[in-house]
Formats: sequence, structure tokens, C-alpha cells
Amino acid sequence: MAKLKALFLNASLKSSEEPSNTEGLAQEVIDIYTKEGVESEIVRLADYHIPYGIEKDMGEGDEWPLIFEKVINSDIVILCSPIWLGEKSSLAMAAIERLYGSSSETNEKGQSIFYNKVGGAVVTGNEDGAKNAASSLLYGLSHIGFVIPPNVDTYWVGEAGPGPSYMDEGGQENDFTKKHVEMLACNTMHLANIFKENPIPAKGNTME
Amino acid sequence: MAKLKALFLNASLKSSEEPSNTEGLAQEVIDIYTKEGVESEIVRLADYHIPYGIEKDMGEGDEWPLIFEKVINSDIVILCSPIWLGEKSSLAMAAIERLYGSSSETNEKGQSIFYNKVGGAVVTGNEDGAKNAASSLLYGLSHIGFVIPPNVDTYWVGEAGPGPSYMDEGGQENDFTKKHVEMLACNTMHLANIFKENPIPAKGNTME
Amino acid sequence: MAKLKALFLNASLKSSEEPSNTEGLAQEVIDIYTKEGVESEIVRLADYHIPYGIEKDMGEGDEWPLIFEKVINSDIVILCSPIWLGEKSSLAMAAIERLYGSSSETNEKGQSIFYNKVGGAVVTGNEDGAKNAASSLLYGLSHIGFVIPPNVDTYWVGEAGPGPSYMDEGGQENDFTKKHVEMLACNTMHLANIFKENPIPAKGNTME
Amino acid sequence: MAKLKALFLNASLKSSEEPSNTEGLAQEVIDIYTKEGVESEIVRLADYHIPYGIEKDMGEGDEWPLIFEKVINSDIVILCSPIWLGEKSSLAMAAIERLYGSSSETNEKGQSIFYNKVGGAVVTGNEDGAKNAASSLLYGLSHIGFVIPPNVDTYWVGEAGPGPSYMDEGGQENDFTKKHVEMLACNTMHLANIFKENPIPAKGNTME
Repeated sequence: MAKLKALFLNASLKSSEEPSNTEGLAQEVIDIYTKEGVESEIVRLADYHIPYGIEKDMGEGDEWPLIFEKVINSDIVILCSPIWLGEKSSLAMAAIERLYGSSSETNEKGQSIFYNKVGGAVVTGNEDGAKNAASSLLYGLSHIGFVIPPNVDTYWVGEAGPGPSYMDEGGQENDFTKKHVEMLACNTMHLANIFKENPIPAKGNTME
Repeated sequence: MAKLKALFLNASLKSSEEPSNTEGLAQEVIDIYTKEGVESEIVRLADYHIPYGIEKDMGEGDEWPLIFEKVINSDIVILCSPIWLGEKSSLAMAAIERLYGSSSETNEKGQSIFYNKVGGAVVTGNEDGAKNAASSLLYGLSHIGFVIPPNVDTYWVGEAGPGPSYMDEGGQENDFTKKHVEMLACNTMHLANIFKENPIPAKGNTME
Repeated sequence: MAKLKALFLNASLKSSEEPSNTEGLAQEVIDIYTKEGVESEIVRLADYHIPYGIEKDMGEGDEWPLIFEKVINSDIVILCSPIWLGEKSSLAMAAIERLYGSSSETNEKGQSIFYNKVGGAVVTGNEDGAKNAASSLLYGLSHIGFVIPPNVDTYWVGEAGPGPSYMDEGGQENDFTKKHVEMLACNTMHLANIFKENPIPAKGNTME
Repeated sequence: MAKLKALFLNASLKSSEEPSNTEGLAQEVIDIYTKEGVESEIVRLADYHIPYGIEKDMGEGDEWPLIFEKVINSDIVILCSPIWLGEKSSLAMAAIERLYGSSSETNEKGQSIFYNKVGGAVVTGNEDGAKNAASSLLYGLSHIGFVIPPNVDTYWVGEAGPGPSYMDEGGQENDFTKKHVEMLACNTMHLANIFKENPIPAKGNTME
């Protein structure tokens, strides 16, 4: 079976000069992918110039097309976001807007270009907001053509209020989060394999 | 191939003595299912006594177990909700709570009992709130084990403010809604068939 | 100055035969109110027969009118909810639907009956979802006529995954939650006093 | 009474070289403010260089401090957003993140710098998502210290699916939207006047 490719779009507000807790959790998923022979790549969105807008290419140094090319070449796309005020980051929303702006492209059958690709979400924050962020990320992916497998919202948050982040202390020992890392990794992989062998028939779902 | 079964849980606040616009839209999906040989059943939740709580059986005349039996025997489950204040109905949330209360049950492989089942959402309102409602319904299903195919959030809403409902005038002629009816019907059907032939492997996703 | 009245609508799914962690947190707010001379009452919604619907009185033993009478006679209304799947409870949504169903009633100036009343939210869960729940509760109140003071979303949640509830251990020692209890209590009180002395002028906001 | 100042932060993804439907609706609010002697200013956020992050000043040409200065000098702040995928824009979220990053600043009493300021939301889209966007915008403002008056979520959206925008045809004739324009304008003005005369007492709400 052809090797699967997984792409992580990390919407941390920080560029890769700084560590990202969200990336720390994504790395746990990657560790499983690597053991299973899935190829992984993380894109730190803050490293790129991604203008606001919903065109496929906004011109003037827009680097989104480079990222979009990676999306097209991946079987699995995991949106990764920190939490601010109980929500996904502005940069995560910018990525969804740009993905949406390319959702009228089609594959060779006339379906959305994202059909047969599988989505997931990785979220961290020092407290509260993970399910709200994950719900929004997964809905965005589903709405533009991705398949959402069961249990692909993996997150870590601490107790209410300011406090340690995922990589500070203890987060990586959370059994619930570890179980969900495994479910996210395995279910995205299982479904990506299933759709590679059994692509979604082009009936009732092509774009006119 | 075995005949597929689709279950519609209609969370209208009204019992079946009154017409439901949301059911009107669900019926459009059923029309396609019928042509394609998928068996459909609509449950009007307001006709049943469904106590608040998260036990599988709350006792004292609880009729949820009757509905849950139907869920277990279905390949496709569509949550249907009207919109109030921009959100899904209280009864839709009650259904999600009760489904969640049964999510620790497992299939013969030890996965959540909902694995290999496919979910979708049908929403109507006289205005605004459909995507918020659908996002919440689909996330709830995904979080407990359902697969969410692409483009399975089908809705109709009118212009901002009080106004006609889906069945009053024109709603049924909305091309966008009709296209999404077709995508919901076909993609839930396509994926239910795929998972019937290719069940999700029991690796990394069993419940301990 | 006339004594203020505060009403807590507790949307725990459990009746008052069982302890409610959310009520435990609400009680912290009440302790401050009591010291400050604000009269408090908690209504456990699950103790009442509240049919689904959006009529002011759904008939057939509907006990909502009893609760609505309390709302009308209060200066401060605090919606209290547990968290399920990262959201407020079904019963909290039912309360909002019924409040909304009464929002066309007007005061003597022709404004919504809820004008000059002040709202707030108290939320607990063993993990994640508090801000999402609070945001929805406060928006519902604001949309029908309540004033929302600053910092009136008070919550406690634990670390990601199953774990202790607010009253089990440590929750009541959380400094962030305690600070927000104080802000909720004081700001609802401050603003209720301000609007008692300075009611919102009836210009541009009466209902025709 | 001192003249009130209202600031509109328009989070359209387009710079001011292009017309913004959301700004068209904001302008309706401004027309009322002007008649009532409230001074208004619209900031098109896309015209400014606003780096991602949560520092008060992110350095390197960050223009947020210019905008923040305007926020500090305003009595009323209206967040204005278009809708994408049923949500507020990425730029609206960026504005909330930056406001949040400045929320530890205090006024002379030690309260959040945003105390006694009044917030509101203006949202437009060609369809669905306005209440979800408004709810998030208002919660963000409330959480950092703004007062949210009743009925300050003003929006226009069309029927489900692609279609005309607010300024294209008919949107400006929508009676519901016009009524809410008036309520937003008048209630923000009424409450800003009330808090100018009756600032929130500094008890229980200062930041340590």
C-alpha cells in the first residue's frame, strides 16, 4: 500500500523561533505515525506570509499557495491550534478561510479537491476551550470536503485559570490526552487507508 | 450488499401532532434514500418521554432505550434540529447527552458501539444559526464514535429576522439546499457502504 | 436603596435530591450576596415540569410560569449550567427557549420585560467547555434584553479528561475561580444598583 | 454632558480600497450616532499592519498600538465582522487577541482599562452565521471588561446559500435589521451615558 502523508498546520501565533505547546502535542501524534510508516510534516503557519482573504492566491508575496500544494499532496490534514479566549487562534481561522477559498477546485471526478482526504484537530491551552476550538476546526474541514473519522479531536488543557502549558509539567502524562493521541493517529490512518482503496464514488457530490 | 438503514432523530420542540419544517427537509433526504434502496425511519423525539440525564436508562418510564435500540440498528444517523436563538434545540442537546451516556458501550471488537456508523445533520430555521447548530450536532456525533462524511450539514434558513419557514414558501426551491440534500444523502450512503465492506480496524481505538 | 434580588436558575440535569457541583459554585456567589444584603434564591430546574416549547405557558401542568414569575421579580438572573460534551446542558437551553418565548412581553415603557435586569453565568464541569457554555448563556440573556456586566462568567473545570468535580477536591481553592466569583457577585450587584437608579431610557428600544 | 465617542473596528478581510458590506451596515449605526451627537470613527483593520500575538506591542512596525489608543479614548467599541464558514473573520479574532493582550492594563481605580466602556457587534454575510459571530464578539468584549447592553447584536444575512450581500439589494430595507440598528445605536449610547455619570464602583473587581 502506498505510504500515507500527514500534514500538520500549526496555527500557533508564534513563529518557529519559539517552542509551541501545540506542536509538542502534535509531535506525540507524529511519533505514532512514524512507527506506522506514515510520513509527517509540520508547517508553522506563523513562519509564512499568509495575507487575509479568500482568493486561492492573494498575490504580492502570498505564500499560501506553497502550503496549499502540501495540503493537496497529503492524505491526512491535522489543524493544530492554541486557545485564546476559549477559541481557536486567528491564524487557525485564516487557514480555514484560505482552504475554503480553494474549495471550488475539483479532483478528476469533479468532486471537491479535498474528497478522500481525512481531517483531525490538535488543540492545547493552559485552560478551557479545547472542544470549542476542535469543533470549529473539524466543522470547517468537513464543510469543505474532508472526512472526519471518530475521535480525532485531541487536546490538553489544565484546570480553570492561568497555569502551566502542555509541555511545562504533567501535560504529557495525562492518560486521557495520550489515549486520544492514539485514537487520532490510528483513526486518521485507518480511514486514509480505507479511502485510498475505496475512494468516495462520484455520485451526488460533484461540483457543477 | 445488505440494505442500509437510516435513522432520523428529529428534535423539533413540537410533537408529531404538528408539522415540522425540519422534518420537511429531512423528507427530501429520505426521498433520495428511498430511490437508492436505503430504508428510512424518522423518530419525532418530542413524542417520547426522554428524561434529562446521562444514564443509558433513567428508569421510571424512560423511553430513550427504545430510541437507542433504533440507533444501534442503523447504519446512518441524522440529527435534525430547528434553530432557537441561533442554536440547536434543547431536545437535540438532550439526545446528544443520552447518546453520550451510552458511548461507553462497545462493539464486538471493543470499539465504541457507534464505530462504522455514519452521521449527518439537518437543520431549519426561519433565519440564521444553521451552521452553528450543525457544527455542534456533527461534533457531538464525531466525539462519540460516528464517522462524519464530507458535506453532511444540510440546512435552510431565510433572510435575517422573522419570516417564512422552510415549508411556507420557496424554501423547497432553494438550489443550495437541494444540492446539499443530495450531498448529504449520497455521501452518508457512500460511506456507510464503504464501512460495511471495510470496517475500521480495531487498533488504537478500543475502549479499556 | 431597595434590597436587590438575585435568582439562580440551576440547569443541572439532576433534581435537588442529588448534590450539584454547579450549585456549589453558585453558593459561593450567594455567600457574597448575603454579606452585601442581596437576597438570593436558587431554582433547581430539574425539580420542575418544564415542557419543551416556546410558549409563555405550554399548558398541561407547565410549571415554567412559576419560574418566570421569579425572573420578573428579580434584579439579577444567573444561569447556572453543568457541561456536557463541551456545552451547556439541554436544560439550560430549555430555560433559554422558555425565556425567549416570553421576551415579547414589555415593561410599562414598552421595552422588553427583561430591560434593566442584569445577567450572569456560573458553569462547572470536570473538564473543558466552560467558556463555550458561558458565552452561549450570556448571549441568550443579552439577546432578549438583559444587561451583561463585565466579567460575569464564573466557572471551574479541571484538567483535560475525566476527573474530580468542583466540590470533590481542590476546586473551591482555585484562586482564579474565587476571583471570578467575586467579580460576578460584585459587578452584577453594582450594575443592578446603577440601573435601579438610572433605568435605560425608552428611546429606540421599545417593542412595537 | 461630554460628547460620546464610538469606535468601529471593521474586521473585513478587504482593505479600504474595496467596499465592505459590513461597513455599510455600520454606517447605518453611525447615521443615528451623528444625529444624536455621538462622534464616530471607523477603523478598517485590514489597512493596518497587525502582527499575530498577544503582546500589547509586538514591535517591528506593529500598528496595533495606534488602534489601541483609539480604543482607550472611546466610550463605545463596536466590533464589525463579515462571516466566513458561519463564523467571524480571522481578523476579528486577531483584534480580540490583541485587545485581550492589553486587558491587564488598569484604569486609575485598578479595574481593567475597559471598565465603563460599552461594546456591541455588527455582522453581515450573504447567509447564515451572524449570531454565532456576534455571540463570540460580545463574549470576548465582556470577558475583558466591557459592558454589553441589551440587543447590541445587529446583523444582516440572506437566505441559505450564495446570494446577494447587504448592500447589493434589499438588505438595507430589512425591517428587522433596521430595528436592531436602532437598538444597537440607542442602547450603546444610553449605557455609555449612564456609566459616564455612574462609573462602576471599584469593589470586588480590581486587578491585583
